[in-house]
Parts: sequence; structure tokens; C-alpha cells
Amino acid sequence: MNNTDLQDYSHKRLNILTNEWVLVSPHRAKRPWQGQNETVNNETRPTYDENCYLCAGNTRINGEKNPDYKDVYVFTNDFAALQSNTKSFEVNDGLLVAQSETGICKVVCFSPDHSKSLADMSANDIKQVVKTWQNEYKTLGDNPEINYVQIFENKGAVMGCSNPHPHGQIWSQSNLPNEVDKKNKTQLAYYSNKKSSLLGDYLKQEIDLQERIIFENDAFVVLVPFWAIWPFETMIVPKKHQKNILEMNDDEAFLYAEAISVITKAYDKLFNTSFPYSSGIHQAPTNSENNEHWHWHMSFYPPLLRSATVKKFMVGYEMFGTPQRDITGETAVKMLKALL
Amino acid sequence: MNNTDLQDYSHKRLNILTNEWVLVSPHRAKRPWQGQNETVNNETRPTYDENCYLCAGNTRINGEKNPDYKDVYVFTNDFAALQSNTKSFEVNDGLLVAQSETGICKVVCFSPDHSKSLADMSANDIKQVVKTWQNEYKTLGDNPEINYVQIFENKGAVMGCSNPHPHGQIWSQSNLPNEVDKKNKTQLAYYSNKKSSLLGDYLKQEIDLQERIIFENDAFVVLVPFWAIWPFETMIVPKKHQKNILEMNDDEAFLYAEAISVITKAYDKLFNTSFPYSSGIHQAPTNSENNEHWHWHMSFYPPLLRSATVKKFMVGYEMFGTPQRDITGETAVKMLKALL
Ligand SMILES: O=P(O)(O)O[C@H]1O[C@H](CO)[C@@H](O)[C@H](O)[C@H]1O
Ligand SMILES: O=P(O)(O)O[C@H]1O[C@H](CO)[C@@H](O)[C@H](O)[C@H]1O
Repeated sequence: MNNTDLQDYSHKRLNILTNEWVLVSPHRAKRPWQGQNETVNNETRPTYDENCYLCAGNTRINGEKNPDYKDVYVFTNDFAALQSNTKSFEVNDGLLVAQSETGICKVVCFSPDHSKSLADMSANDIKQVVKTWQNEYKTLGDNPEINYVQIFENKGAVMGCSNPHPHGQIWSQSNLPNEVDKKNKTQLAYYSNKKSSLLGDYLKQEIDLQERIIFENDAFVVLVPFWAIWPFETMIVPKKHQKNILEMNDDEAFLYAEAISVITKAYDKLFNTSFPYSSGIHQAPTNSENNEHWHWHMSFYPPLLRSATVKKFMVGYEMFGTPQRDITGETAVKMLKALL
Repeated sequence: MNNTDLQDYSHKRLNILTNEWVLVSPHRAKRPWQGQNETVNNETRPTYDENCYLCAGNTRINGEKNPDYKDVYVFTNDFAALQSNTKSFEVNDGLLVAQSETGICKVVCFSPDHSKSLADMSANDIKQVVKTWQNEYKTLGDNPEINYVQIFENKGAVMGCSNPHPHGQIWSQSNLPNEVDKKNKTQLAYYSNKKSSLLGDYLKQEIDLQERIIFENDAFVVLVPFWAIWPFETMIVPKKHQKNILEMNDDEAFLYAEAISVITKAYDKLFNTSFPYSSGIHQAPTNSENNEHWHWHMSFYPPLLRSATVKKFMVGYEMFGTPQRDITGETAVKMLKALL
């Protein structure tokens, strides 16, 4: 493989997990920016904010009072997009097709400390969050109404996050979401054919090449996937073929927390700002028995492109055509690795 | 079909053109907004700005001078994401798959008047833009390197538009972009099976129902598709089964311009602001002979949700799961129709 072509000429790369392409235009990083700048808020926050509905002891909008929690706190979303026990119905009227969707949405406060983010927390503290995710995956998955559990975090105002208190969300539901369905199909096809994990085999190739790996410990690799869309997109992948986060033992939970800590700290250093992103875990559905093809992983999709104030807009061409990026993944790896 | 269920309970709807779902959570429109507000700039602009690189007579960053154009002006993008005559190569190395992509990117100035947008232009002036799109589709399509021509507009700073001068873009390329490939497959499957146009049949159903139609004239319908993702997403569809915009005659070009005028004017009235959006035309590829299944259409994807300053964020769950909307398409139709 002649890697310099990938650094010099426009090309598309295949996302083997979704079977979709990304357009890479390396030469375009040179274009001047004349568009919108984001506002940066590098103000340090207080450790407690009496107006924050996520701080310990405060009352939420629905009148419920948060307990005086000490590490992680989970509650059902007061304005959930999915609700349980709702009416079940189907529309199959010519070309109009719809289906009811039930689910349970939760909010996970990562810490009682209003001033923190995952990047400021110790690996041990992050491990408590990981343990909570495991619990929730288990409990929600045991509910016969739930087939999939989507764990994610929106961080930063630019990512639509409405409260700076460190927190993430869990939306669990009866059907597989679009993106999960795509990854389910590609992994199943590969596994049926090769009897080995698609992502596991990809990981082996990346470990051999050492071109896109940012960090690794005994159980996890942090890398920029070959097909990354966002300028500084990364992925955390377990070295073992594990279908969901429940398969991690206690030591592995710590090593996973360490990987999260390393990448979020590097992000904050990159543009000297509390780095915005959406992150999420893709893993096996909870109520199907045949999930051996799944290899769970966590992705970070951060929007910033050139500085704390200039982001990548996924608009026009990206919405109607194909996601497009300017700097290559290999350049992003070098920039992030230099910050470890 | 019991339509009230769709207005009351969470459900998913199928996009018949992409085979992907959208999650609709009608009850969620009630949640309070505590997140980022966009800055609105309702300042009126001068008709000429000496610093604008799109105004007539001005010099662009690469030293070229714009002519003293009177209606529409097209030039090749100075910072194109796709370039023609670049090196052709392929990567097929285990699970790393890539392919070079060539293309031509153009900028289309809609008017020399810096202060305008499509919403402020007459249908006759917009018709000049339509004529230009037709010319470009033809000329670019005649190029053997080009198989697809993506016409689009990013309007407003919030949509990553770097210059308020009324303009759109055309990115044309050798391969089909992701979204076009999806619509190619669904339309082909339907056409092979039924010998009629998927979108044409859908249109008939919507014309019967009259629930999601905002405007129609002799040749075009403006509607909110059943599967719309963005709060005020709309689609312009030709009543005749036409595979691309070249099939429009002169009268139809005017009626199409009228449809664009009607919807962009309604948008501006909705929140009393110059309404941001990305719009784009999906149509048949240019160099394949077997495109009878294609029914061209134009979509508008506007991000605003509740006001000029509160937009919908397609983040966390949407990126990892499925696009999600709060207000239903049927509510959006009522709001937009009231503004005609
Ligand atoms: O070409 P522009 O207007 O500078 O750039 C804008 O539109 C492009 C095409 O949709 C996007 O790739 C860019 O992210 C966006 O900022
Ligand atoms: O739930 P929040 O933080 O209020 O809302 C945010 O995350 C949700 C899930 O990704 C999105 O649907 C919303 O558009 C976004 O503003």
C-alpha cells in the first residue's frame, strides 16, 4: 500500500462497520476560514451550582430532589424521548410505514463535582462510571421491552449539551437504532464467513501497522479508525473479542477507564479547551441470543477542526452526499499522540 | 390508519428512499430548553460589499477577478474538496479499503445583490438559477470523469456557510455519494418490481391524503415527507416522473422556481429571521443509461426548532442511533401552511 497517495489526493475510504464511505480531501486543509466561530467558555465552574439540576441535593424541574450522591448517580430522564408501557401500534398504509417504539431514557451523573469532566477525573473515578454503565446495561437488558441499550455523552454547548455538569445519557429501546443495525449486519456477515471478529481482525492489522494507534494498555487500544469522519474522531476497542461491556472483568474495567482518561485528557490539551464531543458505546443487543459476531467499542465524535473556535460543519454535501474530512486520520493521530 | 397515535406516542417512521428510520417523540416538544442559543444576525446587508469575494467585480483570494455579472455567475471552487485529473489509485489491503475520487466543485452565485437570499428574489430571478443548474448538470455530466452532480446550498452561519452572499455549490464526482447510492437502490428495487416511480406513487398517496402538503402548482408539490428528520424539513417533488432536472421544460422551470420561492419565503416568516438550511437536489447519475427508476427531488434541511435562536442538535443519540425529532411533521405542515 502506497500510503503517500492517501495523504496527497482526494479519495474515499470504506467504513467496514457501516459499509458507508467517507470522502477525504487532504489538500483542502489549506483553505482559509471565513465562517462562524464558536464561543469558547474556558471559565472554571464552581464545584457546586445551586441552579444546576444535576448537582447533589438540588431539586429538578419535576420537583424531585437529587440525593446527596458521592460518586455516580443515575435517574430516569424527566423529558425522555422514549417512554415505557406506551401504546403499541403499527402503520402500514401504502408507502407510509411506522411502528411504535417504547424505551427507557436515563441520565448518568459522572460526579457530584459540577466543575469536572471525564478529562479531570482519575481513572479510578471513571471506573465507577464504567461500573454504572455495566449495571445499567444489565438491568435495562433484563427488561423484556428492551432490546438495545445506547450509552452516550454529549459534551459541550456546541454539542447540544444543555448542562455543563459532567453527565451522560442512556436511551434503551425495543428496536435496533439505524447505526446499530448497520453494524449488526456487517459484523454478522463477516463472522458467519470467517468465524472471527471483524473488529478484532481489523485491530490486529492496525497493531501490525502502528500508523493509527494513539495509546494501548493490556486490554484496550485507542486509535483513529481508517474511516474516521470527524477531524479528531477516535475509537476505544477491547483487545479481547467481547460482545458487550458486561464481559469486562474488574481489572479490564479499570483499563477501559484509563483509556477514556488518556484520550479525553489529550483532547483537552489539543486546543487548550474543554474539548466538546459526542461519545457512545456500540455493543450487542440485549435480548437476542445470537450475538457472537459483536465486538463492542466506544467512539468519540468531536466537531472541532482547527482551534477551540473553528469546527467542522457536516452540512450541504455531507447531508446530501457523503461525510467529508480535510485533515487525514494519520495526521490527527500524530497530533494527538504528541499530547500524551 | 389511526393518525392520532402518530401525534401522541413515540414511534419510528420509515424513509422509503433510504430505508432508514427516524424516531419521533411528539410528547417531547414540552421539554424546557437550557442549552446553547444561536446568535441571530438580522442586520440588513448592503447590496455590494467590497470585502465579499462573491460580489461582482471583486478579486478572489487566488487573484482572479469576478466579472461584472448581472444575474447568475458560476466559477470553479478555489478550495475544492474534489479535483479533476488527479492520480487514480486503489487500496485493498486486508480491512483497509480506499479508492481515489476525482471531481469538479463549483460555486454558483444566485445574484450580484449581496443583500439578497432566494427568499427575497422573484420567481423569475430564481428561474435563472434553475437554468444554470440545468446547464451545469448537462456540462458536468458530459464529462466522462463525472458520474454524479450534487447541487446544494448551505445558508446561514449556523449551517457552516462562510459567506452571506446568496450562493450555492455543485460538487460533481466519479462515484455515487452514500445518500445517492441508498436512494438509487430503493428506487431501482421498487421500479423493477412495480414498473412505476416510488416517489411518484408516494406523491399520489400524499395528494389523496392532503395532510402533509404545503403548496402545489401545476408541476410541483411542496410537502413535509412522512419520514422528515429536521423539525421543518420539506421536499419539492415534480408531479411528472422526471429522472433529472434536464427534463423540465421552460414553463416547468418557472413553476419549480415558484415552489422554491414559496417555501423559502414561508421559512423566513416562521421565526422572523433569514432561515438557515442546507438544501440539495437528488437526481439520476449522469453517465449510466439505466436511470428510469429515478424521480428527482429537492430537500430542505433546516436546523431551527423553536425560534431563531434555538436549533435542533443532531448529536449523541442521533449520531450513534437514529435521527430523532420532537414536533411531528404534521404539526410542521400546519405551521408552515399558515404562513403562505
Ligand atoms: O465550502 P464551504 O462553504 O466553505 O464549506 C461548507 O460547506 C461544505 C460542503 O457542504 C462543508 O464540507 C464544510 O464543512 C462547510 O463549512
Ligand atoms: O437530552 P438533551 O441533552 O437535553 O438533548 C441533547 O441530546 C439529545 C440526545 O442526543 C438530542 O436529541 C438533543 O437534540 C440534544 O439537544
